[in-house]
Amino acid sequence: MSRSIAVLFMFMALALATTVAQAPPGPATTHTLMPVPKSVAFQAGRLPVQAGLTVAISKHSDPRLLAGLDRTLRRLERRTGLEFPRGLAQDASAATLVVQVDGPGSRVPSLDENESYTLTIDGKQASLKAPTVVGALRGFETLLQLLAGDRDGYYLPAVTINDEPRFPWRGLMIDVGRHFLPIEVIKRNLDGMAAMKLNVLHLHLTEDQGFRIESKKFPKLHQQGSDGLFFTQDQVREIIAYAAERGIRVVPEFDMPGHVTAWLVGHPELGSAPGPYEIVRTWGVVDAALDPTREGTYKFLDVFLGEMAALFPDAYLHIGGDENEGKHWNANPAIKAFMAKNSLADAHALQAYFNRRLLKILTKHGKRMMGWDEIFHPDLPKNIVVQSWRGPQSLAEGARNGYTGILSNGYYIDLMEPTSRHYLVDPLPASSGLSPEEAARIIGGEATMWSEWVTPETVDSRIWPRTAAIAERFWSPASVRDVADMYRRLITVSLQLEDLGLQHESLAPMMLRRMTGTHAIGPIGTLAAVVEPVKGYRRGREKPGGQLTPLTGLVDVARADSMAALKFRMAVDEMLSDAPRFRDRREEIVTTLQTWRDIRPAIDRLIDGAPILREAAPLAVDLAAMGTMGIEAVSYLATGTASPTGWRETALAQLDAAAKPRAALELAVVLPLRKLVVACAEMAQLSAMSRDAWKTRVDTLAAPPPPPKR
Amino acid sequence: MSRSIAVLFMFMALALATTVAQAPPGPATTHTLMPVPKSVAFQAGRLPVQAGLTVAISKHSDPRLLAGLDRTLRRLERRTGLEFPRGLAQDASAATLVVQVDGPGSRVPSLDENESYTLTIDGKQASLKAPTVVGALRGFETLLQLLAGDRDGYYLPAVTINDEPRFPWRGLMIDVGRHFLPIEVIKRNLDGMAAMKLNVLHLHLTEDQGFRIESKKFPKLHQQGSDGLFFTQDQVREIIAYAAERGIRVVPEFDMPGHVTAWLVGHPELGSAPGPYEIVRTWGVVDAALDPTREGTYKFLDVFLGEMAALFPDAYLHIGGDENEGKHWNANPAIKAFMAKNSLADAHALQAYFNRRLLKILTKHGKRMMGWDEIFHPDLPKNIVVQSWRGPQSLAEGARNGYTGILSNGYYIDLMEPTSRHYLVDPLPASSGLSPEEAARIIGGEATMWSEWVTPETVDSRIWPRTAAIAERFWSPASVRDVADMYRRLITVSLQLEDLGLQHESLAPMMLRRMTGTHAIGPIGTLAAVVEPVKGYRRGREKPGGQLTPLTGLVDVARADSMAALKFRMAVDEMLSDAPRFRDRREEIVTTLQTWRDIRPAIDRLIDGAPILREAAPLAVDLAAMGTMGIEAVSYLATGTASPTGWRETALAQLDAAAKPRAALELAVVLPLRKLVVACAEMAQLSAMSRDAWKTRVDTLAAPPPPPKR
Repeated sequence: MSRSIAVLFMFMALALATTVAQAPPGPATTHTLMPVPKSVAFQAGRLPVQAGLTVAISKHSDPRLLAGLDRTLRRLERRTGLEFPRGLAQDASAATLVVQVDGPGSRVPSLDENESYTLTIDGKQASLKAPTVVGALRGFETLLQLLAGDRDGYYLPAVTINDEPRFPWRGLMIDVGRHFLPIEVIKRNLDGMAAMKLNVLHLHLTEDQGFRIESKKFPKLHQQGSDGLFFTQDQVREIIAYAAERGIRVVPEFDMPGHVTAWLVGHPELGSAPGPYEIVRTWGVVDAALDPTREGTYKFLDVFLGEMAALFPDAYLHIGGDENEGKHWNANPAIKAFMAKNSLADAHALQAYFNRRLLKILTKHGKRMMGWDEIFHPDLPKNIVVQSWRGPQSLAEGARNGYTGILSNGYYIDLMEPTSRHYLVDPLPASSGLSPEEAARIIGGEATMWSEWVTPETVDSRIWPRTAAIAERFWSPASVRDVADMYRRLITVSLQLEDLGLQHESLAPMMLRRMTGTHAIGPIGTLAAVVEPVKGYRRGREKPGGQLTPLTGLVDVARADSMAALKFRMAVDEMLSDAPRFRDRREEIVTTLQTWRDIRPAIDRLIDGAPILREAAPLAVDLAAMGTMGIEAVSYLATGTASPTGWRETALAQLDAAAKPRAALELAVVLPLRKLVVACAEMAQLSAMSRDAWKTRVDTLAAPPPPPKR
Repeated sequence: MSRSIAVLFMFMALALATTVAQAPPGPATTHTLMPVPKSVAFQAGRLPVQAGLTVAISKHSDPRLLAGLDRTLRRLERRTGLEFPRGLAQDASAATLVVQVDGPGSRVPSLDENESYTLTIDGKQASLKAPTVVGALRGFETLLQLLAGDRDGYYLPAVTINDEPRFPWRGLMIDVGRHFLPIEVIKRNLDGMAAMKLNVLHLHLTEDQGFRIESKKFPKLHQQGSDGLFFTQDQVREIIAYAAERGIRVVPEFDMPGHVTAWLVGHPELGSAPGPYEIVRTWGVVDAALDPTREGTYKFLDVFLGEMAALFPDAYLHIGGDENEGKHWNANPAIKAFMAKNSLADAHALQAYFNRRLLKILTKHGKRMMGWDEIFHPDLPKNIVVQSWRGPQSLAEGARNGYTGILSNGYYIDLMEPTSRHYLVDPLPASSGLSPEEAARIIGGEATMWSEWVTPETVDSRIWPRTAAIAERFWSPASVRDVADMYRRLITVSLQLEDLGLQHESLAPMMLRRMTGTHAIGPIGTLAAVVEPVKGYRRGREKPGGQLTPLTGLVDVARADSMAALKFRMAVDEMLSDAPRFRDRREEIVTTLQTWRDIRPAIDRLIDGAPILREAAPLAVDLAAMGTMGIEAVSYLATGTASPTGWRETALAQLDAAAKPRAALELAVVLPLRKLVVACAEMAQLSAMSRDAWKTRVDTLAAPPPPPKR
């Protein structure tokens, strides 16, 4: 662990300080490709990228390939500032890049598309070969990630790459129900997905809080259920076309029989309670549910799903099915009577009945059914797809029973967990115990961007860059799971994603300027960089709010997985590993601690003029105290002085207090401070054990008390 | 001048360091309103802005008013983080804000709309009264600009504002012909315009380089003339509706008979030369022109302009008319014969004939004609509007002859001039010598965003914040022209504009991250902050490029009117005014100079990995040399030491070299360095004259050599 952290630090320092590395004389030994290809072999040599760059297409060509090539060349131009000649080269042998595609692949992106490609670069030419256009698109993204520059100019390193995805279903679910996200947000995220070789955009279109798609058959659905915030059918077609151009499927979800309040505002007759209904403005599970006992419900769904099936070309249609607790069913005498008459023992059985009816409708309209764990039922056929929010065991159980599934548990990016945690979750872990045949039924996964706490302004910063690491889990070989190396590459990739219009990196300074009314956001930026939003489902408890609450506070600026905190943690680990000298990185650590110690006057001035930041004041107080405490600790360590009696206890108590969330934020640098404090108190033990053992002892003693339940 | 600079500095320091000012105990004495209202009187007191804020509408109401109110409240919520109750208060007397509007005003925004409003705020209530909905929308923007915060929370200061615009035509022209700018860019700029109380979006839709609007009558126009980059008619309707919601007219321009190459790609039969034509990829005036001698041309224009007249509801349609030099006309024997037969002496006469025919077509379709200076001709009726790119004299001449006009000369924001320069240009200067009746014919002005050197990525940073100052020129009383006070307010306003999605502030860091592949852009950011793009028409000569050239270099990051340079210039002026002590601001100046002196190692490392930045290396070399030189100068001044013989000459020669553009960029801090150098050499004169006289002498001697012709 400490070795991998040291390696990570080395790479981060390289990435942060020297940018694109100088080209090595021999083959490249490291790269910033994400997702990591199936096989990569660098050779000596390089292909210069210059203003004369030409491209030839030597086999199949079509508008989608040409458009993808054009986007690739324009992105290369933007990054290099070079202007390439337009049009294709006639002589493939002389072209800088030759693209050789066997055929178009599926017209509509499909689950069984061949996405493989090979990319070979030597000093003369780059050659990209793929069986399908989508394979070539994936290869273009790899090509762009290979671009490097040094004193001799831009170039592509000599390399041979053979690549194909591990899983065919690599998705991002975006919930546009709870907070609507307009088409331009969806489009730039599709660009980000394509860059990370994701291939399924799952749109969660309907919720208790909003019905987000135009229905021409039942216009009251969107007119009364959306506050005017919905995709028109033209926009849906635009999204689908934009996605298809990038080899991405669009799977729509119409969540039922629960999560349907927004449907019922305009169509209360579909509900299981008498109504009337209003759009829900709060979060959590509510009781509204479709009435599965009336034929009118199925007539309605037949027409509505027929309309949607015609709009969305994908083979799958997601019917949700989650979190219906059946309260309104059990409270409705007519429904209870129906259940008794039809021997449906409970709400689960009634939902299975509903799903069988739905399945007929979907089959009639040419769609396969997909749903969350709850739809799993022995009555349903084996060609449905189950999306597991419950976890790998539920997924594996489905696979053993012959059901196809994808994993989402572990990829809930709305919960603000660190990238490393998502990264190590595997849809098909080595320990699954599944036979090869069973394992083949686990076809991928989806990151889920539930939107309780995001707006069009902040959503990019919640999706990226963490979803890039999840994309790697779905694409790259299972053996690719070095966390330090993932972070090293993620830093670079995150900046490349900005080029696609994503605003995850520029958001924080913008929001801080808005709060403070000044460009001089330095001190509050320093604080924002070392705090993280509370994780899991704590946000709603720590700082309650609903759909109408503005999401423009410090918690909305802060990001999961603070890079500044990671950097500081690594620096402290390095310094402590340098016991008993404690010299490595000490100067840098002290500089950081001084910045914290001295932060208060400037931050207080900012807060005085920006009441929205008042809630951050206690965090600043604690950060300043941690600065003072840390400097004391480092000075004890550096001089080999024992800390005074009681100092450790006082300091740790102070850190326990500092670890508590305020304003739904956590200081992400408490642990390294605990280590510094413990190290001081344990200095006397250094003579009695090895350096590594001592460091392990410090790490263990410094481990924080178990976190409160979420 | 030096006093106003001192005042400016004081305000900048306030704005940069302390953000929103503490509320004064008495009436506010300063504000950051832009444009400045016709009359503002602050009183003692404040109206708290709290979570319980309620709004009542006491008279006329309609969807446009409600939508404007909703946007206003949501922006207040975003800035304060407070959630206000939804819905309108029934009891107006108890509401925090009462809106009283007499009537809807024009359904389609019109030139004679009454945009006045009064806003009265006391400790109990804010009251906004307006004769029209558009007047209320203008008042909402003022209300938002009044929001302040201090330790007691957010509030609106007690004030009485009576406001109305000086000119009824306050426009921004955006050229989407040379570089296309998609609908989301237009929309966010419409929001920025509304915030600055601009009321005309002039879309320059057709150019030699692109035909940017869908024609259903003649689809070859956009299909063959746009590279697929054009507004669909649905998008045009969306833009018009979005603008109308904000009280903004949309005036379309179809430039003819010149600037028409993109029309002729699909319709060569309309041209004066045989063709074929291709989309022009370079900049400058080309020879293509419509053939004004063939009846077919007018039949075509009748149908096309009829289609466009139906699409755009505004009363005016702009026919361009500029820069046709008649070369293709004079080269075409049939056209020459037509001219002879009809006694049309020259191209100008033929164009006047063309315009008379066009006028008939426009009149038939219910539109008034508008065009650039060149359309001015005694044959045309008085109800046309002339847009002057030639200048105030040309405009005044038109007014004396009975023609209505607006000014654009002086507002060419594409030329990268400082805000102060545009700000002081007045469409109707006190010196115009026009009678009141003639003066009334000058109805406003338009900033013009010609798009040779902008992309969707950079255009916001070229329009904003400078256009805010131009908007003030068009709205506020002529007497409002204090440059220092304008800059003070502009700094705040620029950040408020970000809240509307405009990316002018976040662009530079994003682009620098893309170039360098790192977050650690500090040194290159320092350089980028003190350079400005070359001004006027030099860019094309200093760094040639065309429509297909990527605009992602340092010159595209740099902005006109460097704020960092302005700050440094003011600091140097203050220090020199403190002769012979030279103590004021010296420490700050030396710190800045040290940063420059030491910039090279870090910047060289960044450039090594980012060949696109290589062109910036000489600028960094010069900046470092200026740092060294400046530190020497300050030390001579501080110690009263005479500089060595020849030092001044060597230093000034070095500065002359540093003043030369490189990479189409100019170092914006050469002048203060010249002052420091000259001041050293002139120290001996200090005893012989007053401090002010000495400072004037230094300023005069330091004035740079006359700039080269542009």
